[in-house]
Amino acid sequence: MKARIFDTTLRDGEQTPGISLTPDEKLLIARKLDELGVNVIEAGSAITSKGEREGIKKITSEGLSAEICSFTRAVQVDIDAALECDVDSIHLVVPTSDLHLEHKLRKSREEVKVMAVESTQYAVDHGLLVEVSAEDSTRSDMQYLQDIFQASINAGAKRICACDTVGMLTPERSFKFYSQLAELQVPLSVHCHNDFGLAVANSLAGIRAGATQAHVTVNGIGERAGNASLEELVVSLYSLYDVKTDVQIQMLYEVSKTVARITGIYLQPNKAIVGENAFAHESGIHADGVMKKAETYEPITPELVGHKRRFVMGKHVGTHIIKERINEMGFRVDDERFSQIFNRVKSLGDMGKCVTDVDLQAIAEDVMGVMTEKPVELQELTIVSGNKIIPTASVKLKIGDSERLEAGVGVGPVDAAIVAIKKTIEDVADIEFEEYHVDAITGGTDALIDVVVKLKHDGKVVSARSTQPDIINASVEAFLAGINKVLTDKIKQSEKTP
Amino acid sequence: MKARIFDTTLRDGEQTPGISLTPDEKLLIARKLDELGVNVIEAGSAITSKGEREGIKKITSEGLSAEICSFTRAVQVDIDAALECDVDSIHLVVPTSDLHLEHKLRKSREEVKVMAVESTQYAVDHGLLVEVSAEDSTRSDMQYLQDIFQASINAGAKRICACDTVGMLTPERSFKFYSQLAELQVPLSVHCHNDFGLAVANSLAGIRAGATQAHVTVNGIGERAGNASLEELVVSLYSLYDVKTDVQIQMLYEVSKTVARITGIYLQPNKAIVGENAFAHESGIHADGVMKKAETYEPITPELVGHKRRFVMGKHVGTHIIKERINEMGFRVDDERFSQIFNRVKSLGDMGKCVTDVDLQAIAEDVMGVMTEKPVELQELTIVSGNKIIPTASVKLKIGDSERLEAGVGVGPVDAAIVAIKKTIEDVADIEFEEYHVDAITGGTDALIDVVVKLKHDGKVVSARSTQPDIINASVEAFLAGINKVLTDKIKQSEKTP
Repeated sequence: MKARIFDTTLRDGEQTPGISLTPDEKLLIARKLDELGVNVIEAGSAITSKGEREGIKKITSEGLSAEICSFTRAVQVDIDAALECDVDSIHLVVPTSDLHLEHKLRKSREEVKVMAVESTQYAVDHGLLVEVSAEDSTRSDMQYLQDIFQASINAGAKRICACDTVGMLTPERSFKFYSQLAELQVPLSVHCHNDFGLAVANSLAGIRAGATQAHVTVNGIGERAGNASLEELVVSLYSLYDVKTDVQIQMLYEVSKTVARITGIYLQPNKAIVGENAFAHESGIHADGVMKKAETYEPITPELVGHKRRFVMGKHVGTHIIKERINEMGFRVDDERFSQIFNRVKSLGDMGKCVTDVDLQAIAEDVMGVMTEKPVELQELTIVSGNKIIPTASVKLKIGDSERLEAGVGVGPVDAAIVAIKKTIEDVADIEFEEYHVDAITGGTDALIDVVVKLKHDGKVVSARSTQPDIINASVEAFLAGINKVLTDKIKQSEKTP
Repeated sequence: MKARIFDTTLRDGEQTPGISLTPDEKLLIARKLDELGVNVIEAGSAITSKGEREGIKKITSEGLSAEICSFTRAVQVDIDAALECDVDSIHLVVPTSDLHLEHKLRKSREEVKVMAVESTQYAVDHGLLVEVSAEDSTRSDMQYLQDIFQASINAGAKRICACDTVGMLTPERSFKFYSQLAELQVPLSVHCHNDFGLAVANSLAGIRAGATQAHVTVNGIGERAGNASLEELVVSLYSLYDVKTDVQIQMLYEVSKTVARITGIYLQPNKAIVGENAFAHESGIHADGVMKKAETYEPITPELVGHKRRFVMGKHVGTHIIKERINEMGFRVDDERFSQIFNRVKSLGDMGKCVTDVDLQAIAEDVMGVMTEKPVELQELTIVSGNKIIPTASVKLKIGDSERLEAGVGVGPVDAAIVAIKKTIEDVADIEFEEYHVDAITGGTDALIDVVVKLKHDGKVVSARSTQPDIINASVEAFLAGINKVLTDKIKQSEKTP
């Protein structure tokens, strides 16, 4: 069995409060979606604005494999706007529940049916493929719903779609509901919203009931609690229901990251399939099990969706994980030293702290009495900034035996400091600055700030972090920790080569 | 019908990579959970560490209404640790799938059954209520599962629990699976993980099948993709299945915020029920519908779960919303002026920007030619900081006709600037600083930074924001915008009183 994927990230997804995409951003996402293999890209709603039409036009001129679709209401001006953008198809939406008809549209059932039929005819006459869609269909009269769909099909619509606009279905009701619509024997779309957290389960039930296509968004973004999430639906179909799609599953993590970055809607770490923790393990028992055999605590491999496994050490950490990590770092520890290290990790956990590899290395070095000399050491950092001052930083670094002093300016004080540091190390190693990430800060202006940086050197990416209440010092420390990682690796490498 | 809620935020939830709670933090969350009305609080796993036992003891000494439970393995040392913490019950977990038995525990089915029975007896003899739990039960042999549960019940266990440890159930399989266990006719818990995004749907199916209790976590936190989310499950039961719980639904939003703040695991805005966007509306059609009648686009009212509705203006915004907002702000605009305002909001949307109330006010003022004088104006701000320098700020503000100059120090440069500003306004108005929030920063050190502050004055909370690449200037501007809102309201208020 096979299901089609209708992606509405650029339409229903973009209606997420807080998201506004530029035409170029829309194009970037559309290219990724096409590469991912979705069957339909709903690129937007052409009537919305000039910028929206520009975005849709950019996408239709790109020659993508996917069908490019515009949302329209059942009015000629919307369809004309879609035609102007040269789309393949329209997603023609009419409200069908009495609630929507009375309170929003103020029209009778019959009037709306006439609108649907006439709009379908107009669009078909102008060469568009039409998917007729019923808004708030799950609170509509089934007889009326079948009636308006049949009339639209007779007028030339090729697909029908029933929207659970406020996410009120349950899997049981969804199965029953879509079964009744499947009786019409035309391609049928399921379109579910996530108000109760059931959008994916309801979409799966719809497909079991005979729907041939699912409307989804990447990361489940969309108005309110969003739409059914593309990645959860596709992987559930694949792994749990043996239903195929044209989606390249191994690209899911990458596409999710791209959409999060461009829309600015970041995922919680425990988001299924693509969240940062989806394949992360902390507790002692679990991590231990995964190391022995991954299937014990992983339903699918992270590689399947292009993700990666990671271990985090906290107070639940077991001895196996720490031993393994310490060995990997090249330490040989006896039992007594090991239990010292283990207890320090545990007590950090009790204090509410997590232990990263960097922390563990520091603890191990300390216990083992290793004095590691850092290739680059910060000696002085001075920042001046304000509302009428160009943010300026000076930095003194000790690199090997020499001292270097540089100054820099930037758009803000952190930027100025990093500019200055980049200057000082520019001829030491060819390091690219890949990513700078600061976790959301909440609480007060004295809250701890967690900075993570990713640096690239010789095609290898290293990451480093620092947590402090001073964002400038945290950023500088994370950056220098990353540089030191790169340089230490480089020294080790050159020692190996005779 | 009624279901019991077994909350494992402090055990399975705390196993989220990156979370480590201190004993006091555990107590804070336990108090909230008790107030919320969950039936069981799994406070942790007593064997884990000294700090963990301290946390559990704090909770058991608090005299809460909920049953306080500790996780244990089927070994005496774990049960002794739980006894030491004076818990009411234990959640005694044994793996039951051959995969877990062979690869993790390296024991036979019979050996594990003996462990379960002996541990149950030991715990019951020491006065504990025992919930026997099968790990990876959904990949276990049903005959063996029923067998080990029956043996444990005979040994004195009062409840049984079947864990879908890797989240592989579907709603259909869950219904069938829990139906078979319900045949044992003892209180039965459903425990689902969210690897495919189906934890809530599977838990609901388990309850339909006869499970009497659900294991959940606040915000669905937990290892990997987490557990079934308390708020989604409880509200689905209430709204979609007419199943009651003892949970005070109107506290859900508040409890969610508390757990997010303490654990540091923030939610994506489109999280169902409790996400920031769960009742937010952007698009023209939707927001318009909600203003006419909320049920058109909301399945439940935000008040039901203690949340609030909000509107965001972007490129999909309709004329109705903007007209309503502008009227609320006290502007009287003619059609021509209105269409100028409307077009500027739309074109900001096309540029990828969202329009907040503050922005709309500024646009309206500009179009209407209103010159508003701000009560407080920033004249100069100077910051000095670094690695060997105490972060220091000086600030010159114009307040009414006078100028004030103050300096302050803080844990970082932002903190220093805010300290200085607080000093300058301290005798102007009694303003409390409620919250300081910075969205996650990603990209480079020159990325735009979005700062939101909440200030409290006379029992009323106002919020203000600023977006700039310089975090100090953004923080100062947001703070001053908030102060100006408070003071402008105050002036308006005093003008009304004769």
